[in-house]
Order: sequence, then C-alpha cells, then structure tokens
Amino acid sequence: MDGVCRVIAEIITIGDELISGRVRDRNAEFVAGRLFGLGVRVRAITTVADDLARIQDALTRAVRRSDLVLVTGGLGPTEDDVTCAAAAEVGGVPLVRNEAIWLKIKGYLELRGRGESPERYEKLAVLPQGAEIIDPRGNTCGFSIIVGGVPVFLLPGVPEQTRDLMDAQVIPFLSAGLADGSVLRQRLIKTFGLDETAIQEKLAPLAADWPGVSLGYYPDFPEVHLMLTAQAKDENEAAALITRAEGDVRRVLGKVVYGREHDRLESVVGELLAARGRKLAVAESCTGGLIGHRLTGVPGSSEYVDRVLVTYSNQAKVELLGVSGETLEKHGAVSAETAVEMAAGVRERSAVDLGLAVTGIAGPDGGTDEKPVGTVFIALGDAQRTAVRRHRFMGRRHQIKILSAAHALDWLRRYFIQPGFMDS
Amino acid sequence: MDGVCRVIAEIITIGDELISGRVRDRNAEFVAGRLFGLGVRVRAITTVADDLARIQDALTRAVRRSDLVLVTGGLGPTEDDVTCAAAAEVGGVPLVRNEAIWLKIKGYLELRGRGESPERYEKLAVLPQGAEIIDPRGNTCGFSIIVGGVPVFLLPGVPEQTRDLMDAQVIPFLSAGLADGSVLRQRLIKTFGLDETAIQEKLAPLAADWPGVSLGYYPDFPEVHLMLTAQAKDENEAAALITRAEGDVRRVLGKVVYGREHDRLESVVGELLAARGRKLAVAESCTGGLIGHRLTGVPGSSEYVDRVLVTYSNQAKVELLGVSGETLEKHGAVSAETAVEMAAGVRERSAVDLGLAVTGIAGPDGGTDEKPVGTVFIALGDAQRTAVRRHRFMGRRHQIKILSAAHALDWLRRYFIQPGFMDS
Repeated sequence: MDGVCRVIAEIITIGDELISGRVRDRNAEFVAGRLFGLGVRVRAITTVADDLARIQDALTRAVRRSDLVLVTGGLGPTEDDVTCAAAAEVGGVPLVRNEAIWLKIKGYLELRGRGESPERYEKLAVLPQGAEIIDPRGNTCGFSIIVGGVPVFLLPGVPEQTRDLMDAQVIPFLSAGLADGSVLRQRLIKTFGLDETAIQEKLAPLAADWPGVSLGYYPDFPEVHLMLTAQAKDENEAAALITRAEGDVRRVLGKVVYGREHDRLESVVGELLAARGRKLAVAESCTGGLIGHRLTGVPGSSEYVDRVLVTYSNQAKVELLGVSGETLEKHGAVSAETAVEMAAGVRERSAVDLGLAVTGIAGPDGGTDEKPVGTVFIALGDAQRTAVRRHRFMGRRHQIKILSAAHALDWLRRYFIQPGFMDS
Repeated sequence: MDGVCRVIAEIITIGDELISGRVRDRNAEFVAGRLFGLGVRVRAITTVADDLARIQDALTRAVRRSDLVLVTGGLGPTEDDVTCAAAAEVGGVPLVRNEAIWLKIKGYLELRGRGESPERYEKLAVLPQGAEIIDPRGNTCGFSIIVGGVPVFLLPGVPEQTRDLMDAQVIPFLSAGLADGSVLRQRLIKTFGLDETAIQEKLAPLAADWPGVSLGYYPDFPEVHLMLTAQAKDENEAAALITRAEGDVRRVLGKVVYGREHDRLESVVGELLAARGRKLAVAESCTGGLIGHRLTGVPGSSEYVDRVLVTYSNQAKVELLGVSGETLEKHGAVSAETAVEMAAGVRERSAVDLGLAVTGIAGPDGGTDEKPVGTVFIALGDAQRTAVRRHRFMGRRHQIKILSAAHALDWLRRYFIQPGFMDS
C-alpha cells in the first residue's frame, strides 16, 4: 500500500520504568495498533527515560521527519515528570498555567476532602503555551501542540488513560483530519500445519495480484497467522477486496486455515464438538496435561470434555485405560499399539463418543535409536475405528509438548471437517 | 550505582508485527531489564519495521552515540527479514555465507527428513563478514559485529531464543568485557505468595543499607522475582555483597522465597518429591490439566508423577476418584468435601504417597452468591491426613486457572519445607 498512505507517524514513550525493563510498554503496543488500523504508517517507536535532554532529542527528530507524533508518559505531578518542559522547549514556547485545569484540580481535591494542599498538584496545570487540552477527565490531562507544523499529541503514561483518550479523542480527530477519502479493513487468518516459508511460497504469487491488499505474516509457534489489510475508496470495495484475498488464501492453503481473529485451535475444536453434540475423553502421556489445559481454557468446555487422564506411569495406563501389559512389554509405552489402546480405552471407559491419546518421548532423556527424542504417537478413535499417526518432532522438551498438543488438537479438528481423514 | 557505570547501551527491536502493534515487544522489555540489572544505562529503545532504510538509520545513529547496541529481530529466512543486510551496509562489509552454519542447516533438514530444499534456508547462513556467531543452537543464530568500534549484538526475534542467547552468551560477555576494574554479580531470587508492593515495603528499608547492591523487582504473574546486582572491586567482594543481601531477603521474606535463577515452583516441588522418594497423584478439575502440564514440564518428572486425572464431569469424579454421589449432591462439585475426597481418592487408587486435588469455578459462568467465580478448593493429603483450603481468586478464567495451579504447587512445596504446615 505504499504510496497510498501519506501520513507517517512516530511514537515516543517515556518513562524510567520502561527503559529499565521493569514495566511492559503497553502504550507503544496499543497506540501503534490503533494507528496501524487507521492506515497511518509508523516510522519508529522510541522509548526514552524521564530525562529532559533525551526527550527533547527524540521529539526534535520526530517533528523533523514525521507528519504526526504521539507521546505518552512523563505528564505526572512529580519532579521526575519532565515531558511538558521538553515539549515547551522543542516548541519554543513558555510553560504557562492553564487556569481551567487549575480550577478543576482544586475542585477535585476539595471533593476528595483529605485537606491536601493543591500546590503539590499545580504542575499538572502547567502546560506549553498554546496547548489544546484533550478531555481532562482525570487529573492528568492530555494535550496537543503544533511544533513546526506537525501535530504532537501528548498523553499520560497510565495505560487506561491513554486508551481512553486515544479512542475517545485522538482517533476520531485523526480519522476526520487525515482522511484522503479511503477506508481500511483488516482480517486475521490463522493457520496450522505449514511453516512460514512454505506458506509464503504458496501465497507470494497470488498476493502480487491483489491491488490494494497487503499480506503480513505473524508466526506464533507452532502456528502462522496472516493479516490481510485492504485499502479502498469505500467500505464495500474494501470488504470485497478482503473477501477476494481471503478466498485465494483458503483455496491455496485449504484445511491449513483453521480460523480467524480470536479463534484458537481448541476453541474451533470445541465448537465442532458442541455443534455435533459429541463428548470427548483424552489420555495424555508426554503432553502431561497440556491438551486438557488448552481444551478447558475455553469457557463452556465442561459441556464436551468429560475427562482427561494423564497416565504417566505404565501402571496408570493399565489400570485406568485398560492398556494390556503384553502390549506395553512387547511394543513399549511409546508405540502405535499403546496409543491405540489408550485412545480406545479412555473412550470406552468414559462412555463418550471420541477418544484422543498421545504418547511420546519429550526428552531430554529416554530416546533410543529406534525411537529418538521427539517420537510421538497420536491416536484418535470413535465407535467405528481408532487411527494412529507417528510423528517426529524437533526441539526441546517444552517445544515437543507444544507440538504434540497442537497436532493432536488439529487432528481432532480434521476428523470433523475432512471426511475420510482418519483413513489417510 | 550512578557514576560507576559508564556504559550507555541502545536497544533496537525490529519487526513489522511490532510497529503495527500486532505483537507485544517482549524482547525490548527483557533486554532492557537484563541490561539494567547489569548496571548498563539504556539511552533509548527504538522499534522499526522490517525496512532496510529504517534499520540502517536506527543502527547508524545508535553506533554513533552509544557504547553498545543490542538488536533483535529480522534475522529469519524470508525476504522481509533484512536486518543482516542493514548491519552489513552500516558496517561497510559484504554479506558472506558462513559455511559452518550452512552445514548445520543442511544437516538439520536431512534429519527432519521432509525432503526440503536447503536453498530456501540459505539466507540464515549469510551474515555480515566478520560476524562472531553466538551459540547457533537453533536454525536462526545470533551474532555480533563491531561497527565503528562499537559492539553490536544481533539476536533473533523469537523471544525464547533471545532470552536463551542473552542469558547464556551476551550477559556473561558483557560482565567480563565491560569491566572498569570492578566486577558485577547478579542473583535472581524467586518468590510466591506476596505482591510486589508488600515485598517492596518489607525490603526497601533493608535495601537502603546495601552499599554496592541494587535491587530490581520483576513481577511475573503470579510470582515476583527479585534481581540483586552487586558491583565490587573483585569476585570475592561481589559474592560477599550478594550473599549478605540474599540473606537479608530470605530472613525477611521467609518461605515466600521459593528459589533462584532457573528454578520454577514445579521444579522445586519435583526436587523435593524426588529427594524424599515420594510419588504424587493429582486430581484436577477447574485447572483442567495445567498442574499436570507444569509438573511434567520438568525433565525426569515421570519418576515422581504417577498420574494426573482431570475429572471435569461429576461422573468422572465418582468413577475415577471414588467421590461419593452423596457428597456431590449435598455439597456440590466445588466444595471442601469434594476436594478432600478427590485428593484422598486419587492417592489411594494410585497407591502413591501424596494426593493433590483442585476444584473450583474458573468462570466466566457458574458462580453463585455463596460460591462466586474464583472460588477454588485445594486439598492435599498423605496417608495420615488430608487438609483443604478455600481460596477466592480474582481475575478472568485463565488467570484463575494460573492462580489455582500456582497455589496448589506452592502448598505442596510448603508441605515438605514447613513442618506442621497442613495444620495451619
């Protein structure tokens, strides 16, 4: 979309707590997301300490090279908050007390009735000359100033206040003021089963053919998420562009696409189970409860998850699932035969429709030449049949657990949406 | 430690997903925290897109004004990853293929056995001339180069890899290489059971009395971690300072301190179980497998975890744990009585030493006036007795699951280290 978006913005977040890694910078993430949604390009996010010289430096550079600057933090009442002073300095204007805000602060302190001296909070009312107040609902207000022709929005560092002011005041102002008549639409598409490189190879030739639509890749181990962004002259055209691009993605990637936006593998599986009125029981070994944890993270999962048995010991496999001692002895706990008996056992003994089982070697020890670390068997069965698959996963213990659980959930998904999948 | 530390660092994080606010910048937070802990001042954190010109711009400025630069992201195999090219450009050196890494990549792909063409991944082996490789354990390695006399560390964008490489390679290098004759030592102390403000109130008066030692607070929900950093003229003095400060922390916080460095609640519990030769069985309900997942995340846990039963349905509680139908009817599935029968049942039926059980309401639905969302019962028993505790946790579904699992693990820990704890 280069060439279409003309506004380049820059974000500056300020705070000793950010530069020391003590506190996560939620404002940068939030403001960047909102600007991106508006189609505003962000050139850079810069984080500096509550330090006059460094704030001035960042602000001076930002107003020189960008069309719009958003600053958060350093507007509080204490001495270490120096953002206002830096903004006044860079803007070449004096700091003056805003009488409307000063009255408001005094009124608030009286209301609170703790007999506090308002002088302690006077600094909150002292702003660069010419500042336009942004919704001074709290005691710390935001404001905007124009520096060298560039609008600079200064918002408090408290994330809730920043969010409020962004959504209630800044975004509407920008949407109106920056509009070139075009609109933006986004859609997040989630995939499992192919790595980023493979997906890119499949999609790159198509994406070249989507005018007005950009495609972003967001790996989220072990998944890959795709963001489609369409820019068009009106809502209908943007929606049509997104729909066409999503159609291409789904046609090329097929069942690798599992959902959109806030979907997760376990929520998609949960919806399939609920819609078909099926109940599930799970027997885990190497995943140690991770499949259960994911499934039960979905509100309402008690409707379709009957039980999850983490049968870590052989004895538990025999007692709780009815795996035969002979199978364990002959083929081992990590084997196709054991996985099948686990899936069938947990299903029959729970009297549910579907049984899912995982057994494998997560490492770091326990591997052999024949069954190295990462060897995992996943079995899935209903009343008709139980199928099993052997996997070889790479990585460390926790990665092998994550891969095993994701593949197990995905297989369950495909059981529902891909007829004959168990035979493949 | 002002005045002692002369090193000024700068952090650059790279990624379209960061500049668009799609993904939280965990690397900036982590790297800043580690540098702060070392006493290195961070001048600025700059985030830019995967864009050659903008990376070059940020890097050029950073090497001019800072003594040390840490860069994360943009080292992947796809075309949009251009950090290497930008670093080579700014450093004025060509990009060359590193044969050792190239061999490693080819070996890995062969091992994976999917018949993938290695050319697709060749880019991972192409680095600026003169790059020093940093621990290339994964396929995406980190490296360092010297630009204009300033060391620049480039780390992959995957947070896990960044953490590994920072802690295993970069921090030790910096600790050694930045010496002004003094040495730095750090110790991470992990706590569970008090919030940050409460800990700060207890420790602040003591910390004021530690010359040469700084104390950092790192909340890691639901835990609080403390980083002690000592700077002294030699190893012995630094070690003595750290030991004294840690002694103070432990004396004031007592059993709230559960470990150090890479310890986790589940690994500490695992060591206690293994050392005493005890075996554990767990019955989960609202935590849905999370306790099992955490316990089995520890290598060797199969030695002491016999089984974990996620008895989501009442029927499963009756069949698998022997909870009586009368108890369920009279007191409900979320009750002290049910929790006790779950813990006793899973222990007796598994013939192990200890039984741990959790039952509660994770929400968002299912709460009542008497038992609101967040009501959780945790029971723990051995052959002598079974004790139960009622909790009321605040938060959303996943937070309640996390709090429940952490409290259950911590109770198990205290069972071993705090005689008579079950009676309290």
